[in-house]
Amino acid sequence: MFMRFAAALGLLLAMVTPLHAETGYELWLRYRPVEPQYKSQYAVTTLVAGQASPTMDVALSELRRGLSNMLGTVPAPENNVSADGAVVVGTPQSSSVIAALGLPLQQLGGEGYLIRGVTISGHKAIAIAANSDAGVLYGAFAFLRLIQTRQPITALNVISVPKTKIRIIDHWDNANGTIERGYAGQSIWNWRSLPEYLPPRLTDYARADASIGINSAVLNNVSAEAVFLTEPYIEKEAAIASLLRTYGIRTYLSVRWSAPIEIGHLKTADPLDPAVKAWWKTEVDAIYRAIPDFGGFVVKANSEGQPGPGDYHRTHADGANMIADVLAPHHGMIFWRAFVYSDDRKSDRAGQAYKEFVPLDGKFRDNVVIQVKNGPLDFQPREPFSPLFGAMPKTSVMLEMQMTKEYLGQTTHLVYMGPLFEEALKSDTYEHGPGSTIARVTDGSLDHHAFSGLAGVANVGSDQDWSGSIFNQANWYVFGRMAWDVDISARDVAAEWAKQTFVNDPAFVNPVVSMMMGSREAAVNYMTPLGLVLIMSHDDHFGPAPWDEKGDRADWKAPYYHHAAADGIGFDRTATGSNMAAQYNPPLREEFEDATKTPDQYLLFFHHVPWDFKTRSGRSLWDELVTHYRLGVTQVEEMQKAWSSLGAYVDKERFDQVSAFLAIQHREAIWWRDASLAYFQQYSKQPFPAGYAPKYSLSYYEAMPPNTSPDP
Amino acid sequence: MFMRFAAALGLLLAMVTPLHAETGYELWLRYRPVEPQYKSQYAVTTLVAGQASPTMDVALSELRRGLSNMLGTVPAPENNVSADGAVVVGTPQSSSVIAALGLPLQQLGGEGYLIRGVTISGHKAIAIAANSDAGVLYGAFAFLRLIQTRQPITALNVISVPKTKIRIIDHWDNANGTIERGYAGQSIWNWRSLPEYLPPRLTDYARADASIGINSAVLNNVSAEAVFLTEPYIEKEAAIASLLRTYGIRTYLSVRWSAPIEIGHLKTADPLDPAVKAWWKTEVDAIYRAIPDFGGFVVKANSEGQPGPGDYHRTHADGANMIADVLAPHHGMIFWRAFVYSDDRKSDRAGQAYKEFVPLDGKFRDNVVIQVKNGPLDFQPREPFSPLFGAMPKTSVMLEMQMTKEYLGQTTHLVYMGPLFEEALKSDTYEHGPGSTIARVTDGSLDHHAFSGLAGVANVGSDQDWSGSIFNQANWYVFGRMAWDVDISARDVAAEWAKQTFVNDPAFVNPVVSMMMGSREAAVNYMTPLGLVLIMSHDDHFGPAPWDEKGDRADWKAPYYHHAAADGIGFDRTATGSNMAAQYNPPLREEFEDATKTPDQYLLFFHHVPWDFKTRSGRSLWDELVTHYRLGVTQVEEMQKAWSSLGAYVDKERFDQVSAFLAIQHREAIWWRDASLAYFQQYSKQPFPAGYAPKYSLSYYEAMPPNTSPDP
Repeated sequence: MFMRFAAALGLLLAMVTPLHAETGYELWLRYRPVEPQYKSQYAVTTLVAGQASPTMDVALSELRRGLSNMLGTVPAPENNVSADGAVVVGTPQSSSVIAALGLPLQQLGGEGYLIRGVTISGHKAIAIAANSDAGVLYGAFAFLRLIQTRQPITALNVISVPKTKIRIIDHWDNANGTIERGYAGQSIWNWRSLPEYLPPRLTDYARADASIGINSAVLNNVSAEAVFLTEPYIEKEAAIASLLRTYGIRTYLSVRWSAPIEIGHLKTADPLDPAVKAWWKTEVDAIYRAIPDFGGFVVKANSEGQPGPGDYHRTHADGANMIADVLAPHHGMIFWRAFVYSDDRKSDRAGQAYKEFVPLDGKFRDNVVIQVKNGPLDFQPREPFSPLFGAMPKTSVMLEMQMTKEYLGQTTHLVYMGPLFEEALKSDTYEHGPGSTIARVTDGSLDHHAFSGLAGVANVGSDQDWSGSIFNQANWYVFGRMAWDVDISARDVAAEWAKQTFVNDPAFVNPVVSMMMGSREAAVNYMTPLGLVLIMSHDDHFGPAPWDEKGDRADWKAPYYHHAAADGIGFDRTATGSNMAAQYNPPLREEFEDATKTPDQYLLFFHHVPWDFKTRSGRSLWDELVTHYRLGVTQVEEMQKAWSSLGAYVDKERFDQVSAFLAIQHREAIWWRDASLAYFQQYSKQPFPAGYAPKYSLSYYEAMPPNTSPDP
Repeated sequence: MFMRFAAALGLLLAMVTPLHAETGYELWLRYRPVEPQYKSQYAVTTLVAGQASPTMDVALSELRRGLSNMLGTVPAPENNVSADGAVVVGTPQSSSVIAALGLPLQQLGGEGYLIRGVTISGHKAIAIAANSDAGVLYGAFAFLRLIQTRQPITALNVISVPKTKIRIIDHWDNANGTIERGYAGQSIWNWRSLPEYLPPRLTDYARADASIGINSAVLNNVSAEAVFLTEPYIEKEAAIASLLRTYGIRTYLSVRWSAPIEIGHLKTADPLDPAVKAWWKTEVDAIYRAIPDFGGFVVKANSEGQPGPGDYHRTHADGANMIADVLAPHHGMIFWRAFVYSDDRKSDRAGQAYKEFVPLDGKFRDNVVIQVKNGPLDFQPREPFSPLFGAMPKTSVMLEMQMTKEYLGQTTHLVYMGPLFEEALKSDTYEHGPGSTIARVTDGSLDHHAFSGLAGVANVGSDQDWSGSIFNQANWYVFGRMAWDVDISARDVAAEWAKQTFVNDPAFVNPVVSMMMGSREAAVNYMTPLGLVLIMSHDDHFGPAPWDEKGDRADWKAPYYHHAAADGIGFDRTATGSNMAAQYNPPLREEFEDATKTPDQYLLFFHHVPWDFKTRSGRSLWDELVTHYRLGVTQVEEMQKAWSSLGAYVDKERFDQVSAFLAIQHREAIWWRDASLAYFQQYSKQPFPAGYAPKYSLSYYEAMPPNTSPDP
């Protein structure tokens, strides 16, 4: 009967023009029906749950939604296992059935989960167990992921414990609805209609975060506005927090250092002024009255014009500790960003954070975490890791990465960030010899810190597909999965994402994973090969602009970073230059100080070398530069070719979007290649390979209007 | 079989958690299945079409989509009528079946349509016929509307001809994706991913426009950026135009007067400089090469800081005619906005447009239309109509209104603009005695102009529901319907919209239409009763700010408009004041010049009267003001009450949104009432009615942070 019915349903659906085009709104939580051959394997008949709670309710609701849509039948709610095919869900406290199983839950900690095939009253069942309701929710999502990726669920014995305590998504959202460096529409927080209205979209946002283990969210831009600390805004934030809480997510805010002046009407924001501290105490107490599990503050101080304790000749420790003391009674954290650089242009911007923070190691309170971007500059397509990692053993240090592709093609370029995140996490600081990776810094194990965490800057917006493109969704996904497990492989996550987002067929998944895994290197090649950085246009960080001198500050101008001239190209960070390379532990220090030992991928980051410098390939620097730029374009062409053969596996809407965006990426990769080489060639005076002279003049590239790129 | 199948389908759908929540994305084109009792009445079996064309294809596709979803069966495509229940579609040119019917199509003009029950080869059929494919498309949408609103379709004989030639939607969209005065997310034009990518959303946008008869679209903000005239942008605009063209929509651009300087590198934009005219000719020729049916330009010149011919001591006619001459060979139009006011503060801003434009009557080329906002100031909740209407008989004058509720509660307030549009269109200018309404000006009949048109400023954005709220969609809908038929009733359109958007049950439709019809008057009452204008906050035009003196110019400050003082309140526009009332034709002039004859709703617009002035109700002005502000809040409470009883008729998502937004509207109506009265009371020194003293101090209201309002 069911088959006949399903066939009839299929017929009807095929006849009727679909009212719902594929928009990408469902992300990786699509729960499309499994193929007929999987029906028996995934036969779930009942859901056995214990005591209700808001979080348990959403776990059950997700299981019902996922199972009923994938399997075509709704699992019946039962109190006990009375037949094969039960899924038993709960904690030992909430469920007597789970308690009676005597599962080894201690190892799971507060958030881990266990999924195990068990026998109850003689019937086969699957237990999803944890020590907390949030753990059960993570287990429920993991179980649905197994089915979505067509894994066997017989004889399951999955134990998963997050390697970090705080897996935090940073929204750089402003009060006016814009998002700094967001490429997916406007903020999903509609401040004006809060606290009254929590749209369904916010629930779906929380589901997406929870499905990948994100347990913390910063609501507003690190370049913070004081208005977020006013009483009416706290009321709005509390409404969001109460929704997120149900999904195991704690709410945080970015704070503006000068808020005591701007909204407290004090004359100073000096951290050592008792009135300032008293103001913050009143403020923090008010927040905790509204949001009892409030997570804490993120602070971007004395950076890019933001105010900070430096304005009063106080250190970052003075500032962070003052607020930390106010947060501590509430168990609140403070994430103090190390992305600082002053107007002092005598020192190398890449080395400033180290100079400011390393002397403060050991001077921060326990609830202060220094939040460090993966690179010493600013989320470039490729940078060496920040030397602050492995240099502050007495301080909790957390890695911050970008899901949003500020410097990597933004909306349209297909660039999967997994390999970049993996490269950062696997970077060895050598703090205690080999194996002192950033993964071990951010998970706290290297120096035995109780705190551990990973922060990612969101690209979540009001666009129908949340992320501006289907493939951008993968960067949200991989961030969450890597924050949960800092050792997971980017390739495995890519496959997991592709299967859930599209289809499980290996004929689709394999080429797509290859595209994804190669995409970041492609972007490095066509944008900033060989250690080049920050040659994007100053304002929008998008197109090539090695000529751009528009910034107000020397270190906002592109030539500051590449130093291209007749004698060569690159920034000398060795002893003959800024000496920033000396901030790395040995043996990296020696490697980075010697151009012949520095890997080509960091060459121009650390060295100013002549145009005929011989690279490892044997080619001259100029030829190597040309080779990389050409390769980047070729790699995009290969992605286009691969995708063009996959139309049969993807709905038309999403297939067309990806095809069109790859065409844009191709056009813009050519733009990057030709504009960059046209600029550098005026210094190198070297010939272009035959057929590869830029199509337009340098002045044409320089005059491109915003949002446009030349016809290839 | 079908019923059993349908029942089974319903069961499955009920069992499975819906993956698609109601987002409002489908607007009024929802095409939900008709109730069983209508199935036989709407039995359509076949679709008989003639020769294909892009526009005919979308008409047929819309019919297939709508009919199959509403009726559950797909009408079979046939070449001839061979059974009852055929729908025959086409023009006499495209369809021999239509041609053979000998229908009276001449009266339809280029865009009208006819829907008629006919008998063909002995079978009952319905003919949807027109003289153009676009007319057929309008007819197709009208036919689907009949079914969506459960009208009988037997013995149909509908003839509909648009009363205006140009029904134009003005997008105030900027190149960076923001929308000026848009409250529904970002621009739906993604400039960066054009021309490669035309997302499905653009097709749905075009469908929505075409479904209500909109045939023209201005892509960019009237406060225009020159970049829209660059070659790469023309390529992007051409991609949009080719999509819109299929739906019968022509593309227009707003142009920046100084573009010849900014992108043409000329030294001047003087309209009488031959080099300037030559530049515009080259520009216009380039646009027409890319967009052969390009509609023309909208110009906001010498207004709010925009450049214009006045910068060179030339008149609006000098400017408009120069570009008109360049457009004329391409049959392009120029819409020259009359929303101008200079920095000269000696004259009343409300009277400036009249002074600048009336002397130019008769001096404009035939392809110039003066585009005039309904009120002399700026889209207020209520203003008297602009005296330019009925004052330029020798010039084509077009009415411009706002779909976006810039001054009427923006996203959240439920304010149906139908009554405001209707009030404007029915306003009698008395140009040729009674009956010289603005409807007759804008449809060209009053002074026998060949041109006719209606312009509306869009509130269309990237939000899932397009308009920021479900009820805001009604303002898009009513604009289109009124542009097609300037005499249609706002109430009829409200019912039509409510039926299509929600459900046909009169128990739902009647109270909702009542809410909608009363909503604009409620907003006038709680915001700007008795002829008050522009007491919103200067920047965002949202909350009450009669105290706001933040603007750079005198006429951007609220006190300039209300003149509240110890001696009374209101702007004297009679002979003792600015004398702007004299710009109206008799008998209005006499009415507006005498406070005792002026309708209360315009009282303070034309008169400065003492606080104890006796209004028509017999109450003092102060008491009348208080009464109106209180009534506005009560009217919102009545809407809340009405809506709260309608949950059974609406899906949860949309019901909850409207409920939450009404709660916000209520809170903000109280804010408007109390903040405004607290401010005015300091001058009136009159008592508040018992229980109606504002809850907070005036300084508290003045200090509300943006996006917040006080707890009621």
